[in-house]
Amino acid sequence: MIRGTTRLIAHLGYPTAAFRSPMIYNPYFAARGIDAVVVPMGCRADDYADFLKLVFRLSNIHGALVTMPHKVATVALLDEVRPTARVAGACNAVRLGPGGTLVGDMFDGEGFVRGVLRKGRVLAGARALVVGAGGVGSAIAASLAQAGVAALALFDAEVPAMMGLAGRLRRHHPGLAVTVGSADPAGFDLVVNATPLGMQAGDPLPMDVERIAPSTFVGEVVMAAEITPFLEAVRRRGCAFQVGSDMLFEQIPAYLEFFGFPPATPDELRCLAAS
Amino acid sequence: MIRGTTRLIAHLGYPTAAFRSPMIYNPYFAARGIDAVVVPMGCRADDYADFLKLVFRLSNIHGALVTMPHKVATVALLDEVRPTARVAGACNAVRLGPGGTLVGDMFDGEGFVRGVLRKGRVLAGARALVVGAGGVGSAIAASLAQAGVAALALFDAEVPAMMGLAGRLRRHHPGLAVTVGSADPAGFDLVVNATPLGMQAGDPLPMDVERIAPSTFVGEVVMAAEITPFLEAVRRRGCAFQVGSDMLFEQIPAYLEFFGFPPATPDELRCLAAS
Repeated sequence: MIRGTTRLIAHLGYPTAAFRSPMIYNPYFAARGIDAVVVPMGCRADDYADFLKLVFRLSNIHGALVTMPHKVATVALLDEVRPTARVAGACNAVRLGPGGTLVGDMFDGEGFVRGVLRKGRVLAGARALVVGAGGVGSAIAASLAQAGVAALALFDAEVPAMMGLAGRLRRHHPGLAVTVGSADPAGFDLVVNATPLGMQAGDPLPMDVERIAPSTFVGEVVMAAEITPFLEAVRRRGCAFQVGSDMLFEQIPAYLEFFGFPPATPDELRCLAAS
Repeated sequence: MIRGTTRLIAHLGYPTAAFRSPMIYNPYFAARGIDAVVVPMGCRADDYADFLKLVFRLSNIHGALVTMPHKVATVALLDEVRPTARVAGACNAVRLGPGGTLVGDMFDGEGFVRGVLRKGRVLAGARALVVGAGGVGSAIAASLAQAGVAALALFDAEVPAMMGLAGRLRRHHPGLAVTVGSADPAGFDLVVNATPLGMQAGDPLPMDVERIAPSTFVGEVVMAAEITPFLEAVRRRGCAFQVGSDMLFEQIPAYLEFFGFPPATPDELRCLAAS
C-alpha cells in the first residue's frame, strides 16, 4: 500500500512496457513490510540528465534503477562511480550518498556471472565472446574479466563503444587478452548476446548460430521472452544456456545491499514475483 | 500490481507524510482493474517548476495531483487553466492536453460545496466567511461564489493573496458582496477554516470560536485528524460541521472525470479506501 511515507525507487528507462523490476521488488517490499515502491518512469534520453538530478531532490526518493537507454549516460552524471561501474562505463543503480551526492554502481555483470557460476560453469581461464558493448554488455565484460576469464572478444557495430570498453578492460586487467571486431562465435567457451536483438519480432539473430559449438555455454540478456529466438536456435544445436531473467534475479541481492534493504535469495525473489 | 505499462499519476507536494490520495485512488484503480498508480513525490517549491515540466515529459505520465505548497504556483506553469481554477488562482489537478500542453483545474472548492449541499445546507443567498486565501481557501471561495452565496468575507494574514482573491471574485461575480480583512465569525451562515492551522499539535485556533453562533455551519479543510481541535471546539458550541476528508472524497468524482477514468461515488471511494 503506497502512502505519504513511502520511499520511492525511480525505475528510469524508455520505453517502459517491458520493465520487469516492479514485479520483483514490489512483492518483496510487501512481503517484508518495507514501505518502499519501484515506479516505472519513461524518461527519454533528451530529458534524462535534468530529470535524474530533480528526481533525486524529491524528499521521499530512495534510489533509482537505471535501464536502457540511460546506463552509459548515467556515469557522467554522478558524484561517485563504484569500480565495477567505472570499468563497465555504465551504471544501473543510483542512490544518495553523503551531502546529497549521487553514488552509482552496476550489477548486470555481477548478476550474469553469479548465474553462470551457479550453473556449475568455470569462468577462470575461459575464453568468452560478448556481442554488444552497450551498458549491459560492458557490465558483463567487466564482470567476466573480474571473474578471471583468460580471453575476452568484443563486438559492437558502434565502434567507439567497443573500443572504449576494450581500452578500459586492458587498463584494469593487463593480463587479459582482449580482442575486438568479430562476432564469430567459433572457438569460445562462453558467448553472450548483449545486444537488444530479440526484443522485437523479426530481429535478426545477434551472431551466426551455426558457428557455435555444442559445448559452448550461451548467455542471453534479452527478456522479451524466456526463450528468445537466439536461445531457441542454440538449444537446437545442443548448447547449455542462461536466460535473461537469470541475470536479473541473480543481481537483485547485490542491489538490495546497495540500497540498504534486508537480503533475499534469487529463488525467494522469483517465488515472490510469481505469487 | 505496478508494471511497465502502468500509467503514472504524480502526487506533487511537500511534505508528503500526510498525503491521503494514494490510499483512495490506488484501491479504486485495483478494484476497477485500471493500470494506473498515484505516487507521492515530495517536490520542494524551488524545484517545482522544472520538475512539473519534466514529469509531464515521461512517456507513462497520466496526470498530476497537486497539493501544498504548489497549488497557487501551478497556475502560471500551465498552457490552459480551466475557469474555476482561474477564479481560485490555484490548481490541484493537471493533465496533458493536445500537443503535450498542460491543462489544469481545481476541485477542492467543488468538493467542499458538494459536501455542504449533500448535508442539506442551502448556499444560495448565504453569508460565508473563508479564513485562509491560499490554494484551498481560494478554491472554496470561488466555488461558494459559483454556488450563489450572497456575501463572502475573506481573511488571510497574507494581504496580497487575500486582495488578489477578492479582486478575482469581484471581477467574475459582480453581484457578490465581497469583504476582506476580518476573521470575526459572528453573523455568518457558514464559516470555513482554510488555513493549515490544526495540522501541527499546539497550533492556535484559526478564529475566535466563542463568536461562532450555534446555528452557523462550519467547514474544515485540515485532515490531520478527522475531528481537529477547531471542529472539537465548534462541536462544543453546538455547530453542525463538515470534516476535511468530506471535501477530499466529494471532489474525487470530478477528478476522475478530468483524468478520463470511470465514475465512482464518494461513498464507494470511502469504502474502497477503508478496506
